[in-house]
Formats: sequence, structure tokens, C-alpha cells
Amino acid sequence: MWSLKPLSLELLSPVPSDIDIASAQTPKDINVLAQEIGLGSEEYDCYGKQKAKVHLSVVDRMQNQRDGHYVLVTGITPTPLGEGKSTTSVGLCQALGAHLGRNVFACLRQPSQGPTFGIKGGAAGGGYSQVIPMVDFNLHLTGDMHAITAANNLLAAQIDTRIFHEKTQSDEALYNRLVPSKQGVRKFCPIQLKRLKKLGITKTRPEELTADERAVFARLDIDPESITFNRVIDTSDRCLRKITIGQGTSEKGFTRQTQVDITPSSEVMAVLSLATSLDDLKERLGRIVIGSNLKGEPVTADDLGCTGSMAVLLKDAVHPTIMQTLEGTPVFVHCGPFANIAHGCSSIISDRIALKLVGPDGFVVTEAGFGADLGMEKFFNIKCRYSGLTPNAVVIVATIRALKCHGGGPTVALGAPLPDEYTRENLDLVRKGFANLKKHIENTGKFGIPAIVALNRFKWDTDSELDLVQKLCMENGAAAAVICNHWALGGKGAVDLAKAVIRAAESPNHSFHFLYPLEIPIEKKLVIVAREIYGADGIDLSEKARRKIETYTRQGFDKLPLCVSKTQLSLSHDPTLKGAPTGFVLPIRDIQASVGAGFLYPLCGDISTMTGLNTRPAIYDIDLDTETGRVIGLF
Amino acid sequence: MWSLKPLSLELLSPVPSDIDIASAQTPKDINVLAQEIGLGSEEYDCYGKQKAKVHLSVVDRMQNQRDGHYVLVTGITPTPLGEGKSTTSVGLCQALGAHLGRNVFACLRQPSQGPTFGIKGGAAGGGYSQVIPMVDFNLHLTGDMHAITAANNLLAAQIDTRIFHEKTQSDEALYNRLVPSKQGVRKFCPIQLKRLKKLGITKTRPEELTADERAVFARLDIDPESITFNRVIDTSDRCLRKITIGQGTSEKGFTRQTQVDITPSSEVMAVLSLATSLDDLKERLGRIVIGSNLKGEPVTADDLGCTGSMAVLLKDAVHPTIMQTLEGTPVFVHCGPFANIAHGCSSIISDRIALKLVGPDGFVVTEAGFGADLGMEKFFNIKCRYSGLTPNAVVIVATIRALKCHGGGPTVALGAPLPDEYTRENLDLVRKGFANLKKHIENTGKFGIPAIVALNRFKWDTDSELDLVQKLCMENGAAAAVICNHWALGGKGAVDLAKAVIRAAESPNHSFHFLYPLEIPIEKKLVIVAREIYGADGIDLSEKARRKIETYTRQGFDKLPLCVSKTQLSLSHDPTLKGAPTGFVLPIRDIQASVGAGFLYPLCGDISTMTGLNTRPAIYDIDLDTETGRVIGLF
Repeated sequence: MWSLKPLSLELLSPVPSDIDIASAQTPKDINVLAQEIGLGSEEYDCYGKQKAKVHLSVVDRMQNQRDGHYVLVTGITPTPLGEGKSTTSVGLCQALGAHLGRNVFACLRQPSQGPTFGIKGGAAGGGYSQVIPMVDFNLHLTGDMHAITAANNLLAAQIDTRIFHEKTQSDEALYNRLVPSKQGVRKFCPIQLKRLKKLGITKTRPEELTADERAVFARLDIDPESITFNRVIDTSDRCLRKITIGQGTSEKGFTRQTQVDITPSSEVMAVLSLATSLDDLKERLGRIVIGSNLKGEPVTADDLGCTGSMAVLLKDAVHPTIMQTLEGTPVFVHCGPFANIAHGCSSIISDRIALKLVGPDGFVVTEAGFGADLGMEKFFNIKCRYSGLTPNAVVIVATIRALKCHGGGPTVALGAPLPDEYTRENLDLVRKGFANLKKHIENTGKFGIPAIVALNRFKWDTDSELDLVQKLCMENGAAAAVICNHWALGGKGAVDLAKAVIRAAESPNHSFHFLYPLEIPIEKKLVIVAREIYGADGIDLSEKARRKIETYTRQGFDKLPLCVSKTQLSLSHDPTLKGAPTGFVLPIRDIQASVGAGFLYPLCGDISTMTGLNTRPAIYDIDLDTETGRVIGLF
Repeated sequence: MWSLKPLSLELLSPVPSDIDIASAQTPKDINVLAQEIGLGSEEYDCYGKQKAKVHLSVVDRMQNQRDGHYVLVTGITPTPLGEGKSTTSVGLCQALGAHLGRNVFACLRQPSQGPTFGIKGGAAGGGYSQVIPMVDFNLHLTGDMHAITAANNLLAAQIDTRIFHEKTQSDEALYNRLVPSKQGVRKFCPIQLKRLKKLGITKTRPEELTADERAVFARLDIDPESITFNRVIDTSDRCLRKITIGQGTSEKGFTRQTQVDITPSSEVMAVLSLATSLDDLKERLGRIVIGSNLKGEPVTADDLGCTGSMAVLLKDAVHPTIMQTLEGTPVFVHCGPFANIAHGCSSIISDRIALKLVGPDGFVVTEAGFGADLGMEKFFNIKCRYSGLTPNAVVIVATIRALKCHGGGPTVALGAPLPDEYTRENLDLVRKGFANLKKHIENTGKFGIPAIVALNRFKWDTDSELDLVQKLCMENGAAAAVICNHWALGGKGAVDLAKAVIRAAESPNHSFHFLYPLEIPIEKKLVIVAREIYGADGIDLSEKARRKIETYTRQGFDKLPLCVSKTQLSLSHDPTLKGAPTGFVLPIRDIQASVGAGFLYPLCGDISTMTGLNTRPAIYDIDLDTETGRVIGLF
């Protein structure tokens, strides 16, 4: 057991603003927290007094230690207001750690700076269940997001620059530049030797290659139309959704239309979050497919010589950042891939380190983006597949508000006042809307894992409404259904939830399994996910998607798991279909590949990979008090 | 006096590669160094074990302490190979601190990651005069470069998004969105009140404004053609030199041609490096002019509501990063603005903190980019003007190689073997080439500061050649001319230089003054710089430059100092004119403004603000050893 000293909370009512609560609490010096949880001083690097990066070597030191219990926090199909997954993750950990004396780690995703400056709202939890300091959490943190951006953009620059150089040089000139003579000696560097091997050329001395071999080696012949690897930026900048590059006179007419995505949508982000070690990170980076050559063969980061440099840019980002909750329990913040075109989970590395640190009686609470149909399914079928880690329990976060919305209540929107249906008792809407939650409970069962429903209580919720949901949950296979009030009360408000989680996770009556094996064809996997998880009758593949399946199968990428990209606002592909829709067919517009990360992502509809600023973004309110150095207006 | 314990150097011959030397030395724990130089534990934040950020509050604590001696390291007009300014700065500090027992700080610029991955070569010094760990120095450091990129790009995104929103909304809709009603209350936020004040509207309640006032407030009417504020990225990406943005269907046809620059060319970089306090930083950010409205009036970051958010993004970047030399003396690394379109100096803040920390008998060695005609002139006329700090001595770094080049020697280029003229004694070339060095010595005198010439010795240099240069220097007004060998010997090789610097800096026989007063017209300032520093007969203003002078004078920006952007390879605007050219007229193609940073920059010729990758960039060689975590191939 850790000798962790919780921070006490002074609870105020009404609950103040997030930033006021966060500013009122003084975090422990991160060295103190590190010592409390058993980290040696050589196992972490401080970044200021309230953040540190924890080294991967912890896993090696503790390799004989049994892992703790592994709990996923996911949610009902959300309204646009969000139902409080992060807040619940944090509150649950405060309850487990500060109130029930368990070793516990929360493993959260790092938010993007785009939304932080756009729509008001951080991602550090809320009320009395937050990660502190919340300003650090929501801004640069320890620079991982920037390192990912830099690694991504180095590869992107190398793609277009290589095309330019190939267009303007003969085979021989290109070869001579790629393998230059230095003081009379020509040598292939290691990544060039890797390319030779891939090409089946066994010669290792540059002079020995025939003219044909030189040409094959030197000319990647990237088809500009085929490039799927885009530049990224961690700023909401809608004007970059479609751009034309290469219009400078120095580029001699090589122009190309492309797009800039927001950093969480970068494959490099997905790679980092799915990597299990430094070695594995480098392997995955090298496998990133940026497009095809003119023969239709995949071109990789390895082919562009970029792998080592990208790994060097990520060498610190590979270490998760440790912070703390308002009650002084430890939190890892690491990676934040999108939950549509990527798998929406924090890193495998942070979960692995945390599972060792908490020990066999401890708990690691990790979360996945969007509803359980997206985040949980991908957590199981992608993240757990690559990590080899076995989850013990799932918490499904629900709200009376979301249930009413699924039951046919009027539309809710950010900033608009809540319609009466949501602020007055309405058992009928709750009962009808339960169909959605029921489906997520069932889906959890399909992986062999117990589901605990966490009902986030709002001030308008009546006891009858809450009782009804608890009853329905228990009748429909939930291991427990618990009313939570950690937003207003901190860990104290989630003690019942924590007890239910302990019971479920420690019960031996379940065994985790995947929903599909990797060996079956792409189309079959897709049908399984669509039918079992979304409740569809089947799938409808576009001509383009069909061609992609042929291509990926030919290229040997058909053994990858799937990462379906669809709306989070419905179990189906249509955001207007609430509850648990049936009788629909899932349309697959296209299928793309993140070969480095290790999944294919079928696209149902248009998914924007770049957010935009509204007319009056949070930019206007965010300010720095130059007297005190404090940040104002961020929450 | 500090109780600084130098690190001992084990000198090898022949001198190993930079990365091998750097890796062989174990730096002191940064906490140890911080204590040695008198920092309290609350005055710095560790970033790992070998870097820390030092707080601005040190200056307040030591406000009654007299500043140390302030020494600028600049150089002769360089060859493309570089003459070793950074190496000399580091070697001089190693000599002063580790060999002569003086308190000393080196204040260096942070390099861009663009060139690091392009042309081989870091910027942490070289040989036995380096900053360590050199990998950290050359890569992310403590994230300042990324923070600058983020702040820059937030403003850039806000510019185009605002244009889009203004195009698609009525005055009233725009006003209602900018000043929304929250629970029935409408309020201007502080930055909106600032805009009202600028517009001469004295009302402070949103309801009170007339329709006309609402329109004037809400509509910035930015002229897309006038925008001079570009997006930046710290990656060499030539394809972004000219791009068209806004081609996504969601942008409804609002497209615009623009460019992406490399981060050191960002005005935000110049702002941060010239800021003297947090307050001053915010003021300068708010003053950044991004272009004009349709009436030709300047539009600022303040108008876009972006100032506070940019300051928040820079709140950590404002603190300089402390590292150490190979011999364990302290180094600040802070900011790295370009030396052409910006002033090429490290930050005022780092110099100010260092001058306090070293105390009245100590030394701060700071450097400026390119030759003395660019870096030194801007250091004096721009940086010293804003800092109010008085320099005591200038070190001009020269090499026999550069002198021979100026004397008519054949062209030298990176990667190509040195022609015989450079590896055999040639007193005639040296004598002729001295004209260039002579001019820089004279120029230094025009600011009332003594010039010490540091002759970086190369293995080919003969004693006769070196003697000749020393003699010529002393005949032509240098305070000293010293042969240095710190590249091969570390601080020991710069002890003579250090002694000469101490003598000159401690001598009371000089008084610093600017080259021109701010009050005279732009054209007059330009003529003074061209004639006095470059040796031109006069200037030739293009029609465009003339119009800009009118505009800036009308807008009240004519009182700013000048930051001439021209080639670094000649005292003139023509890179092929070596030595000390005369009889030329300086052509001014255009004049642009960095109003936030606080200078106008006249352009002589085309200056690229985005570097490119060559066919075989250093990317190929840089790698991460996943066993040891060590970086390979970076130097």
C-alpha cells in the first residue's frame, strides 16, 4: 500500500467555477507524490513543481509485480453537452484513493489546444473532480502534443520535398546525392540498408548497384494523388481544411491540393498511444504508409528515411506525464487520439506503468472517447489487443438528461437553455430512452466484462427518475447502477460507485474476449461490429470502399483491427436516430488505413479532421494577469 | 563570488565529433548549478535533470544589485561555413568561469528545428566549447519554440476565421455573437472595452451602442490583400512558401494566397525576445499589426481579441532556460529570432536576469546573428534601446579563412573541399581581406565600444598569418586581437581572449551611444545605417518603399528603429562583393513593419522566410538507440 496523503477538499455550495475550485487547491509538490507512490528519483523528470514525466523503465523494474485491476470508463451515447466521463473518471479515483484507501491511478487523454481556445471548456474534469493544475492540463502540458506535431510535419515535409527533388533530378544525380561520397567513402546508412532489403537488393556497397537498382532505390515515385498523410497543427484553423501547396516560384510548378488536420487526428498520435515500448514505437513509425507509388505499392516513413528522426522527436513524449486530482491521487495524462478516425484512448504505456505502480490490489481507471459503441469497442478490439492487458470492469456513465434525449426529448445544444422536459420529472422519456443504455450494457457483456452504470446526478433529477434507471439497469444485466455526485462532492460523491467497481472488478466471474478474430476478412469484421455493437442489419459498401478492401487485402493489411469512424451522437451512422435504432444498414463511404498505428478506419459519412473557431471563441476571455502570473477565463 | 565547481575536461586529440564530446561529459544536476549561482528553489522550475526555467522574479529580488559587465560576441562578414561565434561565446565563458574564476553567463539563441534536420549541424557550439546536453539544446528544449508557434498560429487562425465570419453575417448578428447575452446579461470583456476606447466610443454597456457604433465595433473589415501576418511552423517545408487556403467547401469560396514561414521569422519570436517584462510582452503582443482594414488603418492583435490568449500561451516561454557549458558554467538559452527580417539576438529577459546573477564583477556574454553589420548594429540600435542595458565590450570573431575569402580567395561552400588558398600560407590574401574586419572594428567604435578581435585558429593557419592580422587589428583601432583555440582546448584555449575582454570591459574609457535618434525620419535613419555601417554612398528607395514610408509615417510608426534585412555574406546588399565594398547604393525594395516587436524592416532583395530540405537531409542519419535511449547522428 502506498503512503499517500490525500488533499482535503473544502466543499462549497453552490459549486464554484472549475477554475476557481482548481485555483483554490494547492497541489502537492510532484516529488512528494512521486515518493508516495514508490517512484525512485531516477524514474521521473520534473517539469516544474506540479508535473513530471515518468520513465518507461518502471515497467522493467516491476516486471514481477502483478498488475492491478483495470477499469474502463465509457459512456452512453452522449448529447452535445457531454455526460461527464472525465469528471467521473477523476471522481472515481478520488473515491478509491482518498476515501477507500486503495492505490489508484487515473489515465486520461491530453486535450487539444484547438477546442480549448474555441468552445469554452477544458477537459480536466469538472466541479470537485478535477485534475490540477488545470491550466497546465489544458495547455502545453509537457510538450507531447507539440512533439507529435513536429514529428508528423517532418514526415509531411519530407514527402513533398522528395517529390520535388525526384521531379528535378536524374536517377544518377538523385542516387549520388542520397549516397554521397565523404572523403572518398560512400556508405548506405542503416535506414537505406532497410530499404534495400525491402527491395530485395542484397548488395550493401553503393558502388555495386546496377543503374536499374540505383533507380529503383532512389526513386520513390510517390503518386501525389495517393497521399493520405497530411500536415497537422494543434490550433483550430478551418481555413486549412483544404489548401494548395507548392505555389512558390522555387517549387517550379509542383503544386498539390492537400489539407491540414488538427494534431489529435495525426496517425503519429495514434502510433504513440498504441506503442508498447520504444522499439515498438519506432517499428510503428517506420510502417506508416503515406500513400502509394505509381505502381500502387505502399510508400512508408521508412522509405523516406524519416523513422529515426521522428523517434528522436518523440523520445520525451513517450514518457507519460504525472499530475494529481483535487484530492491528491495520481493521474497520468498521455496522448489524445481522436475517437472517430482513431481509437480515442490514452496511451498503452501510461496504463502499463500505472498497473504496475498500483499493485495487485490497486486500480487503474482509464477512459475512452465518445459513447461505448465507439470508445469501448475500440478500447477492447484495438487497444487491449495491442497491449495484451485484460480489463476487469467497465463503468458506463449516463445522465437522466441523455436518457430523456434518447427517449424523444427535444434537442439540446451548447449555450442554449435546457427545455422543460429536462428540468421536470418525466419518467416516460427516461423509460423510453433507456433503450440506448441497455444496448451499451449488452455490448459490454459481449466482451465478457461486467458493466457498472454511473448515473451522474444533476440538480433537476428526481428520485423517482433515478430509481427507475437503477431498476432498469439491474433488470438488464448491469453489475450495478449507482447514483454519483462527485461533481458537487468530490470523491465522497463517488464512494458508492467505487465500492461497486471494486466488487465487480474483484469478482472472478468473467473472462475477457475480443469481438472478432483478426484473421477473418475485412468485410466480415465490419459486419460483426455493425450488427453486434450498433444494431445494424448489415453494411452497405460503396464502390470505393470495395476497391479499398481489395487493395488492403492485396497489400496484406487485411489482418488489422477496424476503427470505425462514425457520429458519436447515435448508435447508428445517423446523428438524428436516438435510443437504440434498428432496421438500418451502415453505409461505408470509404476505408482508410493507419498502418503504423495498426488499424483500418472505415468512414461512415464525412468526418471533419479540423475544428473551427466560432465568432466569439474563448480567445476573448482568456487572459494573463501580469501581476500574479495567473490565467483568467480558461475553463 | 559564486561557489561554482567547474567540470573538468578530458581533452582528446584529434578532437572527436561534437556529439561524442557532448556525450562523454556528465552535466551537473541543474539543481546543483542553480544553487551554485545563488538561485532560490522557488526561482526556477526543473525540466528534467539538466534544464530549468528561471523566473523573471530574480530581477525584482536583485533590483539593488549592480549589473555585471555586458559583452557582445559578433563576427566578421562570414563565409557560408560560419566562423564560430557560438563556439567563441561558449569558449569565452568557459575561460572566464572555469579558468579565471569570474561569475559568467552565456546568453545564447535557441536554434530552429528546421535546419537541425536539414543541413547537418547544431548550434550548441562545437569541439570542446559546447552547451550540454546538446540534444536538448537542438531539439524541443523547454518548449518555447512550440509555444511561439502556437501563439502565432492562434492569431493567424483568428484573422482568417474573422474574415469568414464577417463575410457571412450581418452587422447585428455579428454584434450579437460578439457580445452575447448570458442569463440575460450582456457585457463587454476587457479586450472589447479596449477596442471601444480605441474607436473613441465611451459607452460601456452593450445595449447603449447605436447601430453605426455596433457595426464599427463588430466589423474589422480586414483587407485580405493587406495581411502580412503569416502562419509559422518550426520545420523546413519549402512547399509552404506560397499556398492557397480556404478551399474547403465549408469556407464558401473565401480563398486567399498566403505563406507559411519558419518560426524564428515570426513576429511573436521578436516580441518575446524584446519584451522586458510580462506586462511589456502583453503590450507588444497587442500592438502586432496583422494588416489593414479597407480604409488603410492598421488592424492589431488587440482588435482580434487575441492578446490575452497569446500571452497565456507564452506564460512559460517568457522564462529563459538555464543549461551549462562543457565546463559547468551557466548558460541561458532564450529566443532565436532571424537576423535578417528580425534583430537576431537572444532575449532581453535572459540578459537582464544574467546581469543581476553575475553581479558587478561578473560577465554576461551575449551574441547576435550574422556579421557585425547586421547582428551588432541591431543589438545596439534595437535591443539595447529597448532594454536600456549598456554594453561594455564587443568581441569580433574572425578567421584566417574568412579574411582570405574577403581578400579575393576562391568561393568556399559547405561540403566541398577547401581550395589550396585556404590551406597554405597566403599573406597577401589575408592583408587584402583585412579590409572587411577593419570596417567592423571601425563600426564598433561608432557606438563608443571597444572591439576585441578573437581569431579562431584553424590547423592550416600559419603564425605569420596570425601575427599579421594581430598587427593590423592593433594598428586599426582594436582594443586587442587574440588568437583562440577553445574549439580544441575548451576554456583553456580562450584564456587570453578572456583576459583581453576583462581589460576592455573594465576600462572606463568608453561611453555607449546609439547611431541615430528615433525622432528623425525613416529615410534619414536608413541613410545613416547604409553609409556608416555598410559603407554605401546612399540608398535607392523603390516606389513601393517610398509609399510604405508615407504610410508608416502617417500611422505614427516612423519613430521605430530600423532592422535592415539584407544578405549576411557581404557588407553590401550584394553577396558577391567581398571585403569592404564602396561606391554602391543600397537598393530598398520594400519596407515592412513589426510594430509589436517594435521595428521597421527595410528589405534589400529577396529574403526567404522558409528553409527547405535538401535531397539527403540529416533526417537520414538521426536515429534513436532504443536500447539506451541515446540520440545518434545529430551534430
